[in-house]
Order: sequence, then structure tokens, then C-alpha cells
Amino acid sequence: MAKFIADIDVMPLRALLDPQGKAVTGSMKNLNLGEIENVRIGKHITLEISATDENAAKVKVDEACKKLLCNQIMEFYEFKLTSAK
Amino acid sequence: MAKFIADIDVMPLRALLDPQGKAVTGSMKNLNLGEIENVRIGKHITLEISATDENAAKVKVDEACKKLLCNQIMEFYEFKLTSAK
Repeated sequence: MAKFIADIDVMPLRALLDPQGKAVTGSMKNLNLGEIENVRIGKHITLEISATDENAAKVKVDEACKKLLCNQIMEFYEFKLTSAK
Repeated sequence: MAKFIADIDVMPLRALLDPQGKAVTGSMKNLNLGEIENVRIGKHITLEISATDENAAKVKVDEACKKLLCNQIMEFYEFKLTSAK
């Protein structure tokens, strides 16, 4: 069994308003950082997974995202796998 | 002025317990995903920034992280900039 590390980003769907991001965009102006706009805030998740190969790990991480980590009605996810040394 | 997109990850410091991640690690077992362990959960933030060049953008994003996005007592951040087309 090999060990892999998954880096997962779960973000609000682009079509949806992100109220937390909107609030932060507003705060940037008060901090003299008005050059910053369109802030969107989601989750970043890292995990370790044991699997026979990278493909098997990918299937498992995909399952974890769909079943637990990501609410696909409001969010989308993407991830990359790296082999753990 | 050029436009850049920043992808920022804000994660709990590795030395600290991450209770949300621990809870999710536990839930993986109940979902028949016991191969997954050591889940850690933080924030993923994307934003757009206008700046004269990539270096200026880097300084601004760094400032935004330190002043607003990241609580450096409990979290660390890393980001990468890409030029927006």
C-alpha cells in the first residue's frame, strides 16, 4: 500500500453569491486594499490516504468529497494527489 | 495595471489540534473510508488584485493575509499568484 496526500479545495459555485467573500471584499477597502476584489471563500482540506495506486486513491478521495466534504448543491470541489514520502 | 488572481490556503498550524479535522477523520470510518486519516481543514480563498507587476501584487496579498485573512497565532498561509487573462 502506498500513501498519498490529497489537497482538496471546496468552493462555493461560481453562479452563487458568496456572502462571506462579499463581506471580506468590503473590508479590504477599509484596510486600504481597494485593489482587491471578487474575494471568494471556501474550504481547503488535506488528508492522507493509503491505497494500492494513485488511481484507487483518486476514486476514494472522490467518494469522500461526494459523501462528506462537499455539498454539491452549493459547492464544487477539485483536488490533487501527491505521493507521500 | 495588470490583473492577478491569488489562490490562498489558510490552514491550522501543524502543531495544533484541528478538532474539525479530527471529527471528519472519525466520520470517514463510518463511511467505509477508513483508509483516510489525518484530515485537516482550513480555508481556501481566491481573489482578484490589480497591481503594476507581480511583485507589487505579492506584497498586497501578503498584507491582506496578515491583516485580515489569517490569524497567525493559530494559522499559517501560503498563496500563489497567476496572471488573469
